[in-house]
Amino acid sequence: MAIGVFDSGVGGLTVLRALRAALPDRDFVYLGDTARLPYGTKSAASVVRYAGQAADALVARGLSCLVIACNTASAVALPALRARYAPLPVLGVLEPGAAAACAVTRSGRIAVLATEGTVRAGAYERAIRALRADATVTAAACPLFVALAEEGWTGGQVVELVAQRYLEPLLTARPAPDVLLLGCTHFPVLAGAIAQVAGAGLTIVDSAATTARAVCGILGVADGRAHGRGTLRLLATDDVGRFARVGATFLREPIDPAAVELIDLAG
Amino acid sequence: MAIGVFDSGVGGLTVLRALRAALPDRDFVYLGDTARLPYGTKSAASVVRYAGQAADALVARGLSCLVIACNTASAVALPALRARYAPLPVLGVLEPGAAAACAVTRSGRIAVLATEGTVRAGAYERAIRALRADATVTAAACPLFVALAEEGWTGGQVVELVAQRYLEPLLTARPAPDVLLLGCTHFPVLAGAIAQVAGAGLTIVDSAATTARAVCGILGVADGRAHGRGTLRLLATDDVGRFARVGATFLREPIDPAAVELIDLAG
Repeated sequence: MAIGVFDSGVGGLTVLRALRAALPDRDFVYLGDTARLPYGTKSAASVVRYAGQAADALVARGLSCLVIACNTASAVALPALRARYAPLPVLGVLEPGAAAACAVTRSGRIAVLATEGTVRAGAYERAIRALRADATVTAAACPLFVALAEEGWTGGQVVELVAQRYLEPLLTARPAPDVLLLGCTHFPVLAGAIAQVAGAGLTIVDSAATTARAVCGILGVADGRAHGRGTLRLLATDDVGRFARVGATFLREPIDPAAVELIDLAG
Repeated sequence: MAIGVFDSGVGGLTVLRALRAALPDRDFVYLGDTARLPYGTKSAASVVRYAGQAADALVARGLSCLVIACNTASAVALPALRARYAPLPVLGVLEPGAAAACAVTRSGRIAVLATEGTVRAGAYERAIRALRADATVTAAACPLFVALAEEGWTGGQVVELVAQRYLEPLLTARPAPDVLLLGCTHFPVLAGAIAQVAGAGLTIVDSAATTARAVCGILGVADGRAHGRGTLRLLATDDVGRFARVGATFLREPIDPAAVELIDLAG
């Protein structure tokens, strides 16, 4: 059975990439709910409903594991999805992201960049404190990063100026953080520009690699050991041409639009 | 009966503002489909479906006229909506925008800034050519403008750099255009920064004022002559707090979140 990966759009392809690198012999089915993206600026009620419809479509295909590769959906919909599909293992990217940050921080002061929805839910603060009770978590909502990443503007002056404006309150906070967690799956493609602005004192982490390790743990397989090549099915709820074009930035390999299946969730 | 105004989100509030200035004694009901915005990056099929559901909800409230204050929806869904609600007058913002550009241009060379969906539909080119067959229309898709406007970043260095990048192919085309048409209802709030980049040789127009005049024509009333004060009802499909906060930039007056009604369309 395949591993299902769900995101509001193309950002989760950064997580899919890490999963395929760790589990090259497994079959994957990825669903991007591009008809209703972005989730990051929407209410919790809408995100819970959209994520439930998308997860239903993936689970109906038969899965060994479901990965919610969207921070906003992980922040607000994960408990409901776990309860609905039990005993199917359902993982979010939030706890793996929190674990990645806690593994790296020395001071326990962690800055998080995320969407409005994830910041509003206070989800990273809770997940980090569950792992390290004395951690200090600051968070900034960076909605323009999503639009920049989708536009393929992954570096240069505009991205750095936007990053400066978003990061400034985090960078000037005292005591300063020592880890910067990218709490949205769109943001890893901007990591180079964000690192320029953040400077050498901050270690940048994201949830892709730790999510892949968590899936390996659940499936009881060692990371990257397998041989052979699994299949990949890509599903989108809107405009497969745009999904292929924009998604290639995130998957870091070309996507054939003819290989993307258009599905209808509802509404 | 009220005048219904529909947009994918808050951008159409720039049109609502012009309509209320022209028709101060009329009642208005505005619906922003914030649960599914933005429309500008979605396929025509999705936009037709979403716009139809939203328009149904407005028409069910009883209207004297329906204004599609969203360029993307006007570009792809207007004929279907007109057919569905006939004899109710249904206006888009596209023909008024084309009329505004044609009224101002001397050379007939018109540059259009719009969303991906509007540009892809070739809608402004058709509407402008219908009014002036010898017009030369160039268009640029500016998806980041939507995100910048929604974030409230309506001026400054980031907006000007983004505008430079989007405008450059239009400004360097020879012969040069003499009119720049803002073909998305989000863009008027960025007009100052866009004008800085465009320079003095380009006259900037949008569709808000001409749409208001077209509605006055349909209703058989003179622009701005009436006295008294009509009512305004605001409806949104997601997060009324965000609608009120972001929408105030576009309506140019404060919006009380408690006065915004949350409605459920579908899906």
